[in-house]
This record gives sequence, C-alpha cells and structure tokens, in this order.
Amino acid sequence: MTPPERIHVIIMAGGIGTRLWPISRRSRPKQFQPLLSERSMLVDTYERVLPLSRADHIWVVTGAEFVGLVREQLPDLPPGNVLGEPVGRNSAPAVALAAARIARREPEAVVLATPSDSFIGDAVAYRDYVAVAVQAAACGSIVTLGVIPSRPDTGYGYIKRGDRLDTVVGAYRVERFAEKPDAPTAQQYLADGGYYWNMGQFIFGAGHFMDRCAVHLPDVAPAMRELAALDELTPEALAQVYPELPDISFDYGIAEREKEMALVPTALEWSDVGNWRAVKEIAVRHGIPARLQGDHIGVDSANCLVLSSSGRLVVTVGVEGCVIVDTGDALLIVHEDKAQEVRAALEEIERKGEGGYL
Amino acid sequence: MTPPERIHVIIMAGGIGTRLWPISRRSRPKQFQPLLSERSMLVDTYERVLPLSRADHIWVVTGAEFVGLVREQLPDLPPGNVLGEPVGRNSAPAVALAAARIARREPEAVVLATPSDSFIGDAVAYRDYVAVAVQAAACGSIVTLGVIPSRPDTGYGYIKRGDRLDTVVGAYRVERFAEKPDAPTAQQYLADGGYYWNMGQFIFGAGHFMDRCAVHLPDVAPAMRELAALDELTPEALAQVYPELPDISFDYGIAEREKEMALVPTALEWSDVGNWRAVKEIAVRHGIPARLQGDHIGVDSANCLVLSSSGRLVVTVGVEGCVIVDTGDALLIVHEDKAQEVRAALEEIERKGEGGYL
Repeated sequence: MTPPERIHVIIMAGGIGTRLWPISRRSRPKQFQPLLSERSMLVDTYERVLPLSRADHIWVVTGAEFVGLVREQLPDLPPGNVLGEPVGRNSAPAVALAAARIARREPEAVVLATPSDSFIGDAVAYRDYVAVAVQAAACGSIVTLGVIPSRPDTGYGYIKRGDRLDTVVGAYRVERFAEKPDAPTAQQYLADGGYYWNMGQFIFGAGHFMDRCAVHLPDVAPAMRELAALDELTPEALAQVYPELPDISFDYGIAEREKEMALVPTALEWSDVGNWRAVKEIAVRHGIPARLQGDHIGVDSANCLVLSSSGRLVVTVGVEGCVIVDTGDALLIVHEDKAQEVRAALEEIERKGEGGYL
Repeated sequence: MTPPERIHVIIMAGGIGTRLWPISRRSRPKQFQPLLSERSMLVDTYERVLPLSRADHIWVVTGAEFVGLVREQLPDLPPGNVLGEPVGRNSAPAVALAAARIARREPEAVVLATPSDSFIGDAVAYRDYVAVAVQAAACGSIVTLGVIPSRPDTGYGYIKRGDRLDTVVGAYRVERFAEKPDAPTAQQYLADGGYYWNMGQFIFGAGHFMDRCAVHLPDVAPAMRELAALDELTPEALAQVYPELPDISFDYGIAEREKEMALVPTALEWSDVGNWRAVKEIAVRHGIPARLQGDHIGVDSANCLVLSSSGRLVVTVGVEGCVIVDTGDALLIVHEDKAQEVRAALEEIERKGEGGYL
C-alpha cells in the first residue's frame, strides 16, 4: 500500500482557557502560552501534526484578534491558512469554515481536525493512530480517536465502541457518544470496558464532511461553501456571514448526529489540560518548563505545584494539594479538588469591575 | 495621693520576629513594621507608654544595626536614649544596660520594661494597670503584669498568682512562673484559675533592680554599672563588654530567681504577635492597615487573611484557614495551624543559600 497523500489539518484554536487563569488571559489564551513545554500548546500541536502533513496543508481557525499571534507563532503557515472568526461560534462552524476551503480545492483530501490545546504524551504513537483513522476516513466515515480511560473521570465525554470495521484493522463503529457522566456512571463505564474518552480529534474526507455537514447543519455548510468560493476570504466577508451561524460544537452538531461514525481506540496518554489539576498531573509526570518553575520552598506542603514567572520566592507551610500560579499582576492559589471553580472566581473578578485582570 | 513622677520606660526592641517573615526581615524586623496599625509596632509601643513618661525618659535597646531606624521612627527620643547592642544577648542584659544608665542618674526612678512588639487592645486600661504596678514597685518589688487567659494557649508562659499584697490594691505575690505548658496542663491552668499569661512587662525601681540583678546575674550588673558610669556610652565601649555577657532572658535570669516578685493581673486584650495565626486573630477583630490589605477574591476560601503590599490581585479557590503574605520579592502561604513552622521554612531558605530573602 502506498502512503496516503499528506493530509490537511485543521487546528482549532478558538478556545479561551478560562480555568487556566492567570496564565491563560483573554488577550493570550492558554493555547498561545508555553505551559507544559518550552513552546506554546499551539506550536506543540503544529509540530505534532506536521509529519503527517505540510505547512501549506495546515489551517488554524482562531478568534480574529489572534490571527496575528498565530502567524507570529507559526511563521511557516501561508497567511491565508489562518482563519479569524469575527465572533466565536464553537467548533462545528470553525471546522466547516476550514473544511469548505479545503474541499473547494481538493474534495478528496483527508482532513484531521484537532484541538490546539491538548496534551498528548507520545506524538509518534498519535500519528500512527491518525494514520489508521485516515484509512477509515478514506473508506467514507467520519472518524474519531478515543483514549482508554485510566480512571472514572467525570470531566470528559465518553465514546462507546461498536463493532469492528471490516475495512480497517484497529477501527470500530461508534455505538454512541456519552456526555460527561456522573461519578457512578463513569465508574460503570470503566468497569464495563469498551468506553473511551472523547479527545475531540476528527478525521474525514473534506468533500464527504461538507455533504454530511449540509445534512446535519443546513444553516452552516452552504454559507461556508459560499465563503470558500471567494478568491480571498476577507474579514469583511466573514463578518457578514459568521455572526448568523449557530453556536454549536462538533460533537453535538455533527458527531452525535452522524450514523456512520468510526472510532480508533488509542492507548495514548492524553489530557484536555482543562484546569490546573490537569496541569499538575501532567507536570508531575513530565515536568514543566524551567522558566515557569517557581522558586519554591515547602514545609508540610506535600503535593503542591508552583508556577512562577515573577522570579519571586514562594514559600508554603502546611498547604497541601494546591496549585500556586504567580504572575506579574495576579496570584492564584487553588486547591486541586476545586480546580473547576476558578471560573467562579473569574466571574467574581468581572462582577467587581476588575475585568482588566482577565 | 500625688501622681507619681513620670516613670522611665525601657522598650526592648532587639527581637527578630522570624515567624512573621516575609514582612519581618533581618534588615527590618517586625517591630519596625506597620502590621496591625498604620504605625510600626515600635511607634505604637512608644505612644502607648508616652503618657506615663516623657520622651527623654524613654529608652530603646535594640541591635546596633537598628539604632538609625529607631531614631528615624522615634525622632523625639534623645539620641543617647537609643542603646545599640553589638550582639544580641537576650532581654536580661538589655534591660540591665538601660536600667544601669537610669539608676546612675536617678536610683529611685521607677522603670517599666516592655517589649516593642506586643499588641495591647486598650492603651488606657494598660496604663492604669501599669500605674498599679508602679505603686507596688515603689514598695520594693519587681512587678510583672499578667493577662487573664481566654484559652488554653500552649504558646505562652504562665504566672501563678499568690497572696494579695497588703500594700497595694490589685497587686499580688507571684507564686511561681510556669514555662509554656503542654495542652493538658494549659487546660488545667484555665480550669484552676489564678494563672495568667506572662506579658513580659516588668516594673521596678532602678536602683533596686540593679541590686537584685547583681545577686542573680553577677556577670551582668557590675559590667553594666561600669558602662553606665561612662559619660558617653560609645559603641566601642559596648563592643568590648557586651559580647562577654551571658545570653539570658529577663524571665529566666531575673524573674524566676527573684523571691519577692509581684503580679498585677489584668483583663487586657493582649498578644505577643508571635506568628501569622496571631496576626490573623487580631486582624479579624480589629482590621489591619488599608495599605496592607491585599486585593483578594476568594471562592470556597473561608477564614483567610491576605496581606499584600505588591498591589497584585490575589485569588484563592478552595483554600481555607490560610494567611497569604505577598511582598515584592517573596510570597508566603501558611495554614494557620502551622504558623509556628515558618521558622523551619526559613532554615530551609538559609540552607539553600538564599539567605538574601531573610
């Protein structure tokens, strides 16, 4: 079998990473920050997919205000490959926008859509799994990757594995997608087996995807095709169309509605790096960049992670299980069990009229 | 009865306040810092005793390196009233040094020796108790003040009250001094009654004190008398004598050895402000200076005190019972139950060669 054409990749970089404040800021969300390596998560994502693709086949969809930042961080991308959303409309319209531009030129192209801000422990293994998914996509499915769960996590969506695909070794039908479960359900999933974490990675033929998108999201696909037909996709053209689109995720708008979804189960170490607890868990296993490692002295302070870009000495006494994030203008101390609650703190900051800190 | 002569006061300002790092620093210990009011604890102490005394009757004994700082904070003191110890030798030699200079000129003077870094809730009531103690001192005793304990504190020394003095209403003999007790003993003291916290406040006739000091500390009193006989007490003269003195506290060297100690029990709100837990408790009742109050937003963060002189926003999520002290170059997060352990953290800082932070 000849190797497939190098695929196209859509990097979804529109998130705002609220729960990773104060490193993630409105003006520079987490995907643009070096958090778990010396490079930003966006650059890590780019480097991870580049061997499957090539620079002019990689597309980034992000907020219009971040287009300059993406071009700065990924100077090898053709400028036209960075698509700036005038308003956020979640992942389904974002993927459709880029997929339409790809399909216009190369309807048979296979496309990988990936978040810009995931942690994946082994890039080589990841690319091997994507290669399997590319084969399944070439057979006409929209394919997703799933991770074998290592714990009954209630913060992730799950995918139930169905029957094997006859066509591709290592690929299965998706029986169903399951929303973030409660704790007993998550425990049951783990006990039952056959459930995988939803990584938000999707692989599909560009033209096929636009057809299915037209079925599931009749408001979105035609508008995107019209935009894609323009020789130059100007911000003005986008600004006319994009705000009218529904705000809908790829999972909800496409994946859960599609009958022929395929799954490639993986044994990857993966995290959506959604909150400080997740950062801490990855940091414990893999370390964090030296310039983020705070100068920390702890007494009776087991199980703390200190990130400091301020150069100050951080001393903890009798403080356990906390993440401490020290930046120039703001300091966060969060217990790992409450990592989700950072969002509530930010609402409070907003309410107090101190939104400048966000 | 005519009001007594205005008394002399010795303010003991030689402490280093280790456990209140990072506000208390080697270069500026806690007594020189505004912590519980807009003025430093030294200035608060001076203002508290001034109505009993007058500026040229108030003496400060401190480390030689802090003489300039004391003169700056207390510009009304005659320069010769600030005595700089070339090395720290604890409170007995410090008091003896100042008392000798007072006794030389005015052997009948009554002297109050007070720490520079205590919190006392009601200065007027305090002065009333001191006035009672002055009467008892005039009758020939070394007198101490005690506080009715409000809890079985194991961090304070205790004083057992003996019989009433016939001569002065409100004064008693000291039956004994008791070192910091263990928890069951402290509980027993509280249940028994008749035990008072040792405030480290002593009132005595200057000449009488030097006589008793000569008995209990024969190495100290004669040397101090010799120094006091000099017209000018130069740093050079002190440097020759002081390092040879024993390192010994007033409690251990004088009070516990003296048979005729008297006690004036008080109902004062008092704290030695020995650690961050103590600061927090006082701050909860009385507040702290506005310029030390950090800009703090807490979620699930009951019972925290945030002090910040950096102007940064401090956000806590799921952090309870902590004191957070944010300064320009160092940050401390300490659980109130471990407030004593700050000392261990500072040892660790020293050990890591980062003593510059101390």
